[in-house]
Amino acid sequence: MRSNAVEGRPPLLVTLGEPAGIGPDVVLSAWLSGRMPEPDRGPVAAFVVIGDADALSARSRRLGLEVPISVVGTPEEGRSAFRQALPVLHRPLSAPPVAGRPDPANAPAVLAAIEEAVSMVRSGRGAAVVTGPIHKKTLYDGGFTFPGHTEYLAALAGPGAKPVMMLASPQLRVVPVTVHLPLRGAVEALSTDGIVTAARTTAAALAGDFGIAAPRLAVAGLNPHAGEDGALGREELDIIAPALAHLHRQGITVAGPVPPDALFTPSMRDSYDAAICMYHDQALIPLKALDFDGGVNVTLGLPFVRTSPDHGTALDIAGSGIARPDSLIAALRLAAEISARRSTAGMA
Amino acid sequence: MRSNAVEGRPPLLVTLGEPAGIGPDVVLSAWLSGRMPEPDRGPVAAFVVIGDADALSARSRRLGLEVPISVVGTPEEGRSAFRQALPVLHRPLSAPPVAGRPDPANAPAVLAAIEEAVSMVRSGRGAAVVTGPIHKKTLYDGGFTFPGHTEYLAALAGPGAKPVMMLASPQLRVVPVTVHLPLRGAVEALSTDGIVTAARTTAAALAGDFGIAAPRLAVAGLNPHAGEDGALGREELDIIAPALAHLHRQGITVAGPVPPDALFTPSMRDSYDAAICMYHDQALIPLKALDFDGGVNVTLGLPFVRTSPDHGTALDIAGSGIARPDSLIAALRLAAEISARRSTAGMA
Repeated sequence: MRSNAVEGRPPLLVTLGEPAGIGPDVVLSAWLSGRMPEPDRGPVAAFVVIGDADALSARSRRLGLEVPISVVGTPEEGRSAFRQALPVLHRPLSAPPVAGRPDPANAPAVLAAIEEAVSMVRSGRGAAVVTGPIHKKTLYDGGFTFPGHTEYLAALAGPGAKPVMMLASPQLRVVPVTVHLPLRGAVEALSTDGIVTAARTTAAALAGDFGIAAPRLAVAGLNPHAGEDGALGREELDIIAPALAHLHRQGITVAGPVPPDALFTPSMRDSYDAAICMYHDQALIPLKALDFDGGVNVTLGLPFVRTSPDHGTALDIAGSGIARPDSLIAALRLAAEISARRSTAGMA
Repeated sequence: MRSNAVEGRPPLLVTLGEPAGIGPDVVLSAWLSGRMPEPDRGPVAAFVVIGDADALSARSRRLGLEVPISVVGTPEEGRSAFRQALPVLHRPLSAPPVAGRPDPANAPAVLAAIEEAVSMVRSGRGAAVVTGPIHKKTLYDGGFTFPGHTEYLAALAGPGAKPVMMLASPQLRVVPVTVHLPLRGAVEALSTDGIVTAARTTAAALAGDFGIAAPRLAVAGLNPHAGEDGALGREELDIIAPALAHLHRQGITVAGPVPPDALFTPSMRDSYDAAICMYHDQALIPLKALDFDGGVNVTLGLPFVRTSPDHGTALDIAGSGIARPDSLIAALRLAAEISARRSTAGMA
């Protein structure tokens, strides 16, 4: 019954992100290689692209790929077409994209695709949103006013959504409490509330979305050696310890503050299901050092499932054929797993 | 002639550091396992301990190790004894050490051992100093006034010494420009001069001490995405870029500022011989994530060779037998390699 239930589920909805970047490249490659079963797991779940079918065909020709593209009218049609062709809900761009050269004229279409994907998932016609990388500067030039993808998705989710970014790879899951801030600003922005929110959202997601019955968290210190009792900084005592006390009172299993350089050793990694990190690079450095190609960005705390590959637009290699689809494939697999779990939980 | 030259060289001199910590444990284990040749390399070079022979015997009994200890009068005698017994220049402690419980009464002896090791190496009776981990708080309580081991060694080296800390493992060499500062203070302390000094000292050491004819450096950014042209912080533009320009003018091969989370991916690691990092954990997180047991701390820029294992006193496991000697063995091997290169260069 399980496979029927999965087969009958709506497809994943994929946005290309910046059409001049590697988003189209990895979507095409993911369709080609993702349909092949991997050891111990099947092919990826069916996905449907929301984007410009002509631009996608042009990129496919440039890359010399044999990807049949099928323009479909609905997600349901796309799901049926998926095993034979890459299904696309055709939404034309304003200007034909040139690989490596983003055009602000296409910003409205880039954003509209994300908005449509979210809307379809929220109405039950898509299982999850999987987003290709956007180019923020180009969107800003085109009038975009959000700091990034995640904040835009939070706004689409409506008031009360507190999105939390997790990066997940087979070796490690990390959640940065502060994200796109200068390092100095990240230190200043660190707060007990921020740590508590990130940790609670993470614990709930590990249980509900990742199927971990009794999730274990570890919270990093901010300073070298986690501050050495105040000798190397007071944030552990003044900000992080109160957050840990609060989380313990709520019954959340959490260790810390752990010296940041000890947190990612192999034996420590075995002791937790996710590491709550104080700033962007504290989380991203170990993740990418250990597994550059397989990381997935998943947004926790939204009323819909959203994942994305853990890389940027890589304008310098767009259209060259060297971009690897591993991270997108991992993002597709994780989106399918999480949405299946949420759907099962909803039926239970 | 090479092996004769090595055989005739003075021994490495090892200090135990905090006698209540794991220093004695790993020295005993390193003697036991370091005498066995490893694949593609021989046994470790002869080393002589400067410390309390009775305390070492007591720890050996507690650990159930079969380590014959030989009290010797000179480093030369120690070198001859090394293959049969662990040679010790006996320097009694004031109080018998209790594993896990550092005693400030022993601080003077801990410091005197380091001072004697340095003095012997500088006078040519030792090849290099290999230091066990000290417990800073205990030394402070005993009257020590330096921020750490490295600063103390710099003072012993005399005026003009600008020590630079490198952590080296088989996968990665990293040099933090700022070390034991709160993260906020590290951001404030970052300077063009500091980066230039660290990079120049590193380039010189890679060539002279590590035998890399044309060393390649990579300099990390400070902020996420290396600041995104100022959108996520200005230190890359105001502090790091001028340092890179200066280094280029001096003919040093150096790339950067590299986004910190991209710097430690496998393909990036192949592109440089050492990464110049802006703060402690930017350097230590990837090093320990990739290789926790084999990292070595080597102090560049001193007029004598000094290495140490890349771990602390680990008071909680001292005397338990679970401390691994891998890092100390790596520190002994690296000290022997560097001093052999300096000695050959001196003779050339």
